[in-house]
Amino acid sequence: MLTLYWATGTCALASHIALEQSGAAYEAQRLDFSKNQQRSPEYLRVNPKGRVPALVTDRGILSETPAILMYIAQSFPQAELAPLDDPFLLAQINAFNSYLCSTVHVAHAHKHRGHRWTDDAAAQAAMRERVPQNMTECFTLIEREMFKGPWVLGERYSISDPYLFTVSRWLASDGVDIAQFPNVAAHAARMAELQAVAKVLSVHNAPA
Amino acid sequence: MLTLYWATGTCALASHIALEQSGAAYEAQRLDFSKNQQRSPEYLRVNPKGRVPALVTDRGILSETPAILMYIAQSFPQAELAPLDDPFLLAQINAFNSYLCSTVHVAHAHKHRGHRWTDDAAAQAAMRERVPQNMTECFTLIEREMFKGPWVLGERYSISDPYLFTVSRWLASDGVDIAQFPNVAAHAARMAELQAVAKVLSVHNAPA
Repeated sequence: MLTLYWATGTCALASHIALEQSGAAYEAQRLDFSKNQQRSPEYLRVNPKGRVPALVTDRGILSETPAILMYIAQSFPQAELAPLDDPFLLAQINAFNSYLCSTVHVAHAHKHRGHRWTDDAAAQAAMRERVPQNMTECFTLIEREMFKGPWVLGERYSISDPYLFTVSRWLASDGVDIAQFPNVAAHAARMAELQAVAKVLSVHNAPA
Repeated sequence: MLTLYWATGTCALASHIALEQSGAAYEAQRLDFSKNQQRSPEYLRVNPKGRVPALVTDRGILSETPAILMYIAQSFPQAELAPLDDPFLLAQINAFNSYLCSTVHVAHAHKHRGHRWTDDAAAQAAMRERVPQNMTECFTLIEREMFKGPWVLGERYSISDPYLFTVSRWLASDGVDIAQFPNVAAHAARMAELQAVAKVLSVHNAPA
Protein backbone atom coordinates (compact mmCIF):
# COMPACT_ATOMS: atom_id res chain seq x y z
CA MET A 1 0.00 0.00 0.00
CA LEU A 2 1.23 3.46 -0.97
CA THR A 3 0.24 6.62 0.89
CA LEU A 4 0.32 9.99 -0.84
CA TYR A 5 0.32 13.20 1.17
CA TRP A 6 -1.27 16.09 -0.70
CA ALA A 7 -2.83 19.53 -0.21
CA THR A 8 -5.27 21.59 -2.25
CA GLY A 9 -3.78 23.81 -4.95
CA THR A 10 -0.33 22.20 -4.83
CA CYS A 11 1.68 20.24 -7.38
CA ALA A 12 0.73 17.05 -5.49
CA LEU A 13 -2.27 16.90 -7.84
CA ALA A 14 0.03 15.54 -10.57
CA SER A 15 1.19 12.57 -8.48
CA HIS A 16 -2.37 11.94 -7.29
CA ILE A 17 -3.66 11.69 -10.88
CA ALA A 18 -0.77 9.42 -11.90
CA LEU A 19 -1.40 7.15 -8.90
CA GLU A 20 -5.09 6.92 -9.78
CA GLN A 21 -4.16 6.04 -13.38
CA SER A 22 -1.54 3.50 -12.33
CA GLY A 23 -3.96 1.02 -10.84
CA ALA A 24 -1.87 0.94 -7.64
CA ALA A 25 -3.46 0.34 -4.24
CA TYR A 26 -3.01 3.67 -2.44
CA GLU A 27 -4.52 6.00 0.05
CA ALA A 28 -4.40 9.78 -0.09
CA GLN A 29 -3.80 11.80 3.08
CA ARG A 30 -4.85 15.43 2.91
CA LEU A 31 -2.86 18.14 4.69
CA ASP A 32 -4.48 21.48 5.47
CA PHE A 33 -1.92 24.17 4.66
CA SER A 34 -4.23 26.83 6.17
CA LYS A 35 -3.59 25.08 9.52
CA ASN A 36 0.13 24.71 8.69
CA GLN A 37 -0.12 20.92 8.99
CA GLN A 38 2.85 20.55 6.65
CA ARG A 39 5.00 21.94 9.50
CA SER A 40 3.65 19.66 12.23
CA PRO A 41 6.24 17.46 13.99
CA GLU A 42 4.36 14.37 12.71
CA TYR A 43 4.56 15.45 9.08
CA LEU A 44 8.16 16.66 9.31
CA ARG A 45 9.02 13.08 10.25
CA VAL A 46 7.46 12.01 6.92
CA ASN A 47 9.04 14.82 4.88
CA PRO A 48 11.65 16.99 6.59
CA LYS A 49 11.18 19.54 3.80
CA GLY A 50 7.65 20.30 5.05
CA ARG A 51 6.25 20.15 1.52
CA VAL A 52 3.95 17.96 -0.53
CA PRO A 53 3.83 15.60 -2.31
CA ALA A 54 5.37 12.83 -0.27
CA LEU A 55 4.82 9.17 -1.12
CA VAL A 56 5.20 6.56 1.58
CA THR A 57 6.30 3.21 0.14
CA ASP A 58 7.25 -0.03 1.87
CA ARG A 59 10.93 0.78 1.14
CA GLY A 60 10.93 4.38 2.33
CA ILE A 61 9.50 7.81 1.64
CA LEU A 62 9.89 9.69 -1.62
CA SER A 63 9.44 13.41 -2.28
CA GLU A 64 9.70 15.72 -5.33
CA THR A 65 7.09 15.50 -8.08
CA PRO A 66 9.38 14.38 -10.97
CA ALA A 67 10.76 11.54 -8.82
CA ILE A 68 7.36 10.36 -7.62
CA LEU A 69 5.90 10.48 -11.13
CA MET A 70 8.74 8.38 -12.59
CA TYR A 71 8.54 5.97 -9.65
CA ILE A 72 4.84 5.40 -10.35
CA ALA A 73 5.47 4.91 -14.08
CA GLN A 74 8.30 2.42 -13.48
CA SER A 75 6.58 0.53 -10.66
CA PHE A 76 3.31 0.01 -12.58
CA PRO A 77 4.48 -0.53 -16.17
CA GLN A 78 1.14 -2.02 -17.23
CA ALA A 79 -0.40 1.46 -16.92
CA GLU A 80 1.93 2.67 -19.72
CA LEU A 81 2.58 6.07 -18.16
CA ALA A 82 6.04 6.41 -19.74
CA PRO A 83 8.03 4.86 -22.64
CA LEU A 84 10.15 2.90 -20.18
CA ASP A 85 12.35 1.16 -22.73
CA ASP A 86 13.49 4.30 -24.58
CA PRO A 87 16.15 6.42 -22.79
CA PHE A 88 15.74 9.33 -25.21
CA LEU A 89 11.96 9.61 -24.79
CA LEU A 90 12.37 9.19 -21.03
CA ALA A 91 14.91 12.02 -21.11
CA GLN A 92 12.38 14.21 -22.91
CA ILE A 93 9.90 13.51 -20.11
CA ASN A 94 12.55 14.22 -17.49
CA ALA A 95 13.55 17.46 -19.25
CA PHE A 96 9.95 18.62 -19.45
CA ASN A 97 9.27 17.76 -15.81
CA SER A 98 12.54 19.37 -14.67
CA TYR A 99 11.56 22.57 -16.47
CA LEU A 100 8.19 22.54 -14.70
CA CYS A 101 9.73 22.02 -11.25
CA SER A 102 12.81 24.23 -11.49
CA THR A 103 11.54 27.11 -13.66
CA VAL A 104 7.72 27.22 -13.98
CA HIS A 105 6.85 26.18 -10.42
CA VAL A 106 9.54 28.56 -9.14
CA ALA A 107 8.15 31.43 -11.28
CA HIS A 108 4.71 30.78 -9.77
CA ALA A 109 6.08 30.48 -6.22
CA HIS A 110 7.30 34.07 -6.30
CA LYS A 111 3.67 35.11 -5.94
CA HIS A 112 2.79 33.62 -2.54
CA ARG A 113 6.11 32.18 -1.36
CA GLY A 114 8.40 35.19 -1.79
CA HIS A 115 9.29 34.81 1.88
CA ARG A 116 11.47 31.88 0.82
CA TRP A 117 13.94 34.30 -0.75
CA THR A 118 13.57 37.49 1.33
CA ASP A 119 11.77 38.84 4.40
CA ASP A 120 11.60 42.30 2.82
CA ALA A 121 7.92 43.11 2.13
CA ALA A 122 8.71 45.59 -0.66
CA ALA A 123 10.97 43.05 -2.38
CA GLN A 124 8.26 40.39 -2.09
CA ALA A 125 5.79 42.80 -3.70
CA ALA A 126 8.25 43.52 -6.51
CA MET A 127 8.63 39.80 -7.19
CA ARG A 128 4.85 39.28 -7.08
CA GLU A 129 4.40 41.94 -9.72
CA ARG A 130 6.61 40.05 -12.21
CA VAL A 131 4.77 36.72 -11.86
CA PRO A 132 2.28 37.19 -14.74
CA GLN A 133 5.12 38.13 -17.13
CA ASN A 134 7.30 35.18 -16.09
CA MET A 135 4.45 32.68 -16.26
CA THR A 136 3.54 34.04 -19.71
CA GLU A 137 7.14 33.57 -20.89
CA CYS A 138 7.26 30.00 -19.53
CA PHE A 139 4.00 29.01 -21.18
CA THR A 140 4.96 30.68 -24.45
CA LEU A 141 8.01 28.41 -24.54
CA ILE A 142 5.90 25.36 -23.66
CA GLU A 143 3.26 26.26 -26.26
CA ARG A 144 5.70 26.97 -29.09
CA GLU A 145 8.73 24.77 -28.45
CA MET A 146 8.04 21.97 -26.02
CA PHE A 147 4.44 20.76 -26.33
CA LYS A 148 3.87 18.33 -29.21
CA GLY A 149 0.18 17.48 -28.94
CA PRO A 150 -2.28 16.07 -28.39
CA TRP A 151 -0.22 15.06 -25.34
CA VAL A 152 3.03 16.60 -24.12
CA LEU A 153 5.19 13.96 -25.82
CA GLY A 154 2.97 13.69 -28.93
CA GLU A 155 0.62 10.77 -29.57
CA ARG A 156 1.61 9.03 -26.37
CA TYR A 157 0.17 10.01 -22.96
CA SER A 158 2.77 10.14 -20.17
CA ILE A 159 3.49 11.37 -16.65
CA SER A 160 4.29 14.80 -18.12
CA ASP A 161 0.59 15.26 -18.87
CA PRO A 162 -0.82 15.39 -15.33
CA TYR A 163 2.13 17.60 -14.36
CA LEU A 164 1.50 20.12 -17.14
CA PHE A 165 -2.23 20.01 -16.34
CA THR A 166 -1.51 20.77 -12.67
CA VAL A 167 0.78 23.72 -13.37
CA SER A 168 -1.46 25.16 -16.11
CA ARG A 169 -4.29 25.36 -13.54
CA TRP A 170 -2.25 28.00 -11.71
CA LEU A 171 -2.31 30.43 -14.65
CA ALA A 172 -5.69 32.02 -13.85
CA SER A 173 -4.75 32.90 -10.27
CA ASP A 174 -1.40 34.20 -11.58
CA GLY A 175 -3.32 36.66 -13.77
CA VAL A 176 -2.55 34.89 -17.05
CA ASP A 177 -5.27 33.91 -19.55
CA ILE A 178 -4.70 30.31 -20.68
CA ALA A 179 -6.51 31.13 -23.95
CA GLN A 180 -3.25 32.78 -25.12
CA PHE A 181 -1.86 29.25 -25.36
CA PRO A 182 -4.32 27.27 -27.50
CA ASN A 183 -2.37 24.00 -27.33
CA VAL A 184 -2.06 24.17 -23.55
CA ALA A 185 -5.73 25.16 -23.17
CA ALA A 186 -6.88 22.26 -25.37
CA HIS A 187 -4.63 19.93 -23.36
CA ALA A 188 -6.22 21.08 -20.09
CA ALA A 189 -9.71 20.43 -21.51
CA ARG A 190 -8.60 17.00 -22.79
CA MET A 191 -7.17 16.10 -19.38
CA ALA A 192 -10.33 17.19 -17.53
CA GLU A 193 -12.33 14.68 -19.57
CA LEU A 194 -10.32 11.71 -18.34
CA GLN A 195 -12.16 9.69 -15.74
CA ALA A 196 -9.19 9.44 -13.35
CA VAL A 197 -8.63 13.19 -13.51
CA ALA A 198 -12.30 13.96 -12.80
CA LYS A 199 -12.24 11.59 -9.84
CA VAL A 200 -9.10 13.12 -8.30
CA LEU A 201 -10.31 16.68 -8.94
CA SER A 202 -13.54 15.93 -7.09
CA VAL A 203 -11.43 14.94 -4.09
CA HIS A 204 -9.20 18.03 -4.36
CA ASN A 205 -12.17 20.37 -4.82
CA ALA A 206 -14.03 19.05 -1.77
CA PRO A 207 -13.92 21.25 1.35
CA ALA A 208 -11.11 20.38 3.77
CA MET B 1 28.74 11.43 -31.27
CA LEU B 2 27.27 13.55 -28.48
CA THR B 3 27.97 17.25 -28.10
CA LEU B 4 27.68 18.95 -24.71
CA TYR B 5 27.39 22.72 -24.46
CA TRP B 6 28.80 24.04 -21.20
CA ALA B 7 30.06 27.23 -19.52
CA THR B 8 32.39 27.87 -16.61
CA GLY B 9 30.82 27.95 -13.15
CA THR B 10 27.50 26.46 -14.28
CA CYS B 11 25.69 23.24 -13.44
CA ALA B 12 26.83 21.85 -16.82
CA LEU B 13 29.90 20.58 -14.93
CA ALA B 14 27.78 17.70 -13.58
CA SER B 15 26.80 16.47 -17.05
CA HIS B 16 30.37 16.93 -18.29
CA ILE B 17 31.75 14.72 -15.51
CA ALA B 18 29.08 12.05 -16.09
CA LEU B 19 29.81 12.05 -19.84
CA GLU B 20 33.52 11.63 -19.16
CA GLN B 21 32.75 8.73 -16.80
CA SER B 22 30.30 7.11 -19.21
CA GLY B 23 32.87 6.17 -21.81
CA ALA B 24 30.73 7.85 -24.49
CA ALA B 25 32.27 9.48 -27.56
CA TYR B 26 31.53 13.17 -27.05
CA GLU B 27 32.78 16.63 -27.66
CA ALA B 28 32.38 19.58 -25.32
CA GLN B 29 31.55 23.02 -26.72
CA ARG B 30 32.31 25.92 -24.42
CA LEU B 31 30.09 29.00 -24.30
CA ASP B 32 31.43 32.28 -22.91
CA PHE B 33 28.69 33.76 -20.74
CA SER B 34 30.74 36.97 -20.35
CA LYS B 35 30.17 37.48 -24.09
CA ASN B 36 26.50 36.42 -23.73
CA GLN B 37 27.05 33.56 -26.19
CA GLN B 38 24.15 31.66 -24.60
CA ARG B 39 21.84 34.30 -26.12
CA SER B 40 23.29 34.16 -29.64
CA PRO B 41 20.83 33.22 -32.41
CA GLU B 42 22.96 30.14 -33.17
CA TYR B 43 22.78 28.86 -29.62
CA LEU B 44 19.10 29.69 -29.19
CA ARG B 45 18.49 27.28 -32.08
CA VAL B 46 20.22 24.60 -29.98
CA ASN B 47 18.47 25.51 -26.70
CA PRO B 48 15.65 28.09 -26.87
CA LYS B 49 16.00 28.53 -23.09
CA GLY B 50 19.42 30.16 -23.57
CA ARG B 51 20.93 28.05 -20.79
CA VAL B 52 23.45 25.26 -20.35
CA PRO B 53 23.78 22.32 -20.30
CA ALA B 54 22.40 21.18 -23.63
CA LEU B 55 23.26 17.78 -25.07
CA VAL B 56 23.02 17.23 -28.81
CA THR B 57 22.22 13.61 -29.65
CA ASP B 58 21.46 11.96 -32.98
CA ARG B 59 17.76 11.88 -32.02
CA GLY B 60 17.45 15.47 -30.84
CA ILE B 61 18.63 17.94 -28.23
CA LEU B 62 18.18 17.51 -24.49
CA SER B 63 18.36 20.13 -21.77
CA GLU B 64 17.99 20.19 -17.95
CA THR B 65 20.68 18.58 -15.79
CA PRO B 66 18.55 15.82 -14.18
CA ALA B 67 17.34 14.69 -17.62
CA ILE B 68 20.80 14.72 -19.20
CA LEU B 69 22.33 12.85 -16.26
CA MET B 70 19.70 10.09 -16.38
CA TYR B 71 20.01 9.88 -20.17
CA ILE B 72 23.76 9.31 -19.85
CA ALA B 73 23.26 6.66 -17.14
CA GLN B 74 20.62 4.80 -19.16
CA SER B 75 22.41 5.07 -22.52
CA PHE B 76 25.75 3.78 -21.18
CA PRO B 77 24.72 1.14 -18.62
CA GLN B 78 28.17 -0.44 -18.55
CA ALA B 79 29.43 2.67 -16.72
CA GLU B 80 27.09 1.82 -13.81
CA LEU B 81 26.15 5.42 -13.08
CA ALA B 82 22.72 4.49 -11.69
CA PRO B 83 20.93 1.38 -10.31
CA LEU B 84 18.89 1.09 -13.50
CA ASP B 85 16.90 -1.99 -12.52
CA ASP B 86 15.58 -0.62 -9.22
CA PRO B 87 12.72 1.92 -9.48
CA PHE B 88 12.96 2.88 -5.80
CA LEU B 89 16.70 3.64 -5.88
CA LEU B 90 16.23 5.49 -9.17
CA ALA B 91 13.48 7.53 -7.51
CA GLN B 92 15.87 8.41 -4.69
CA ILE B 93 18.34 9.68 -7.32
CA ASN B 94 15.57 11.62 -9.08
CA ALA B 95 14.37 13.09 -5.78
CA PHE B 96 17.89 14.19 -4.85
CA ASN B 97 18.54 15.69 -8.28
CA SER B 98 15.12 17.41 -8.33
CA TYR B 99 15.89 19.00 -4.98
CA LEU B 100 19.22 20.28 -6.33
CA CYS B 101 17.64 21.78 -9.47
CA SER B 102 14.40 23.17 -8.04
CA THR B 103 15.50 24.32 -4.57
CA VAL B 104 19.30 24.51 -4.16
CA HIS B 105 20.17 25.84 -7.62
CA VAL B 106 17.27 28.30 -7.32
CA ALA B 107 18.48 29.45 -3.88
CA HIS B 108 21.93 30.08 -5.40
CA ALA B 109 20.50 31.83 -8.47
CA HIS B 110 19.01 34.57 -6.32
CA LYS B 111 22.54 35.89 -5.91
CA HIS B 112 23.45 36.77 -9.51
CA ARG B 113 20.22 36.03 -11.39
CA GLY B 114 17.72 38.04 -9.33
CA HIS B 115 16.75 39.82 -12.56
CA ARG B 116 14.84 36.67 -13.47
CA TRP B 117 12.24 37.52 -10.83
CA THR B 118 12.31 41.33 -10.62
CA ASP B 119 13.93 44.36 -12.26
CA ASP B 120 13.88 46.24 -8.96
CA ALA B 121 17.49 46.76 -7.82
CA ALA B 122 16.60 47.05 -4.13
CA ALA B 123 14.58 43.84 -4.30
CA GLN B 124 17.47 42.06 -6.03
CA ALA B 125 19.79 43.25 -3.24
CA ALA B 126 17.33 41.98 -0.61
CA MET B 127 17.25 38.54 -2.27
CA ARG B 128 21.07 38.49 -2.56
CA GLU B 129 21.38 39.10 1.16
CA ARG B 130 19.38 35.96 2.00
CA VAL B 131 21.46 33.63 -0.21
CA PRO B 132 23.97 32.50 2.47
CA GLN B 133 21.14 31.62 4.87
CA ASN B 134 19.17 29.70 2.25
CA MET B 135 22.22 27.79 0.99
CA THR B 136 23.09 26.94 4.61
CA GLU B 137 19.58 25.59 5.18
CA CYS B 138 19.68 23.52 1.98
CA PHE B 139 23.06 21.99 2.81
CA THR B 140 22.05 21.34 6.42
CA LEU B 141 19.18 19.23 5.08
CA ILE B 142 21.50 17.45 2.63
CA GLU B 143 24.14 16.85 5.34
CA ARG B 144 21.72 15.55 7.97
CA GLU B 145 18.85 13.93 6.09
CA MET B 146 19.69 13.16 2.47
CA PHE B 147 23.38 12.28 2.10
CA LYS B 148 24.20 8.68 3.04
CA GLY B 149 27.95 8.44 2.41
CA PRO B 150 30.50 7.81 1.19
CA TRP B 151 28.42 8.64 -1.93
CA VAL B 152 25.05 10.35 -2.08
CA LEU B 153 23.14 7.05 -2.30
CA GLY B 154 25.45 5.18 0.08
CA GLU B 155 28.03 2.62 -1.05
CA ARG B 156 27.09 3.03 -4.70
CA TYR B 157 28.36 5.94 -6.82
CA SER B 158 25.71 7.50 -9.07
CA ILE B 159 24.81 10.52 -11.21
CA SER B 160 23.78 12.35 -8.03
CA ASP B 161 27.46 12.55 -7.06
CA PRO B 162 28.76 14.85 -9.81
CA TYR B 163 25.62 16.98 -9.36
CA LEU B 164 26.13 17.42 -5.61
CA PHE B 165 29.84 18.07 -6.22
CA THR B 166 28.96 20.79 -8.77
CA VAL B 167 26.48 22.57 -6.52
CA SER B 168 28.67 22.29 -3.41
CA ARG B 169 31.41 24.17 -5.30
CA TRP B 170 29.12 27.25 -5.27
CA LEU B 171 29.08 27.46 -1.46
CA ALA B 172 32.30 29.47 -1.09
CA SER B 173 31.19 32.21 -3.49
CA ASP B 174 27.80 32.23 -1.75
CA GLY B 175 29.58 33.06 1.52
CA VAL B 176 29.04 29.65 3.12
CA ASP B 177 31.88 27.60 4.63
CA ILE B 178 31.62 24.00 3.40
CA ALA B 179 33.44 22.88 6.57
CA GLN B 180 30.10 23.26 8.41
CA PHE B 181 28.99 20.18 6.49
CA PRO B 182 31.64 17.51 7.13
CA ASN B 183 29.93 14.82 5.01
CA VAL B 184 29.53 17.16 2.05
CA ALA B 185 33.10 18.46 2.42
CA ALA B 186 34.51 14.92 2.52
CA HIS B 187 32.42 14.06 -0.55
CA ALA B 188 33.83 17.03 -2.46
CA ALA B 189 37.38 15.94 -1.61
CA ARG B 190 36.58 12.33 -2.62
CA MET B 191 35.14 13.52 -5.95
CA ALA B 192 38.14 15.73 -6.71
CA GLU B 193 40.38 12.65 -6.49
CA LEU B 194 38.58 10.84 -9.30
CA GLN B 195 40.52 10.89 -12.55
CA ALA B 196 37.51 11.88 -14.70
CA VAL B 197 36.68 14.75 -12.37
CA ALA B 198 40.25 16.06 -12.40
CA LYS B 199 40.30 15.89 -16.19
CA VAL B 200 37.01 17.80 -16.62
CA LEU B 201 37.96 20.37 -13.96
CA SER B 202 41.20 21.10 -15.82
CA VAL B 203 39.09 21.92 -18.88
CA HIS B 204 36.64 24.08 -16.89
CA ASN B 205 39.43 25.90 -15.07
CA ALA B 206 41.30 26.80 -18.26
CA PRO B 207 40.94 30.41 -19.48
CA ALA B 208 38.14 30.91 -22.03
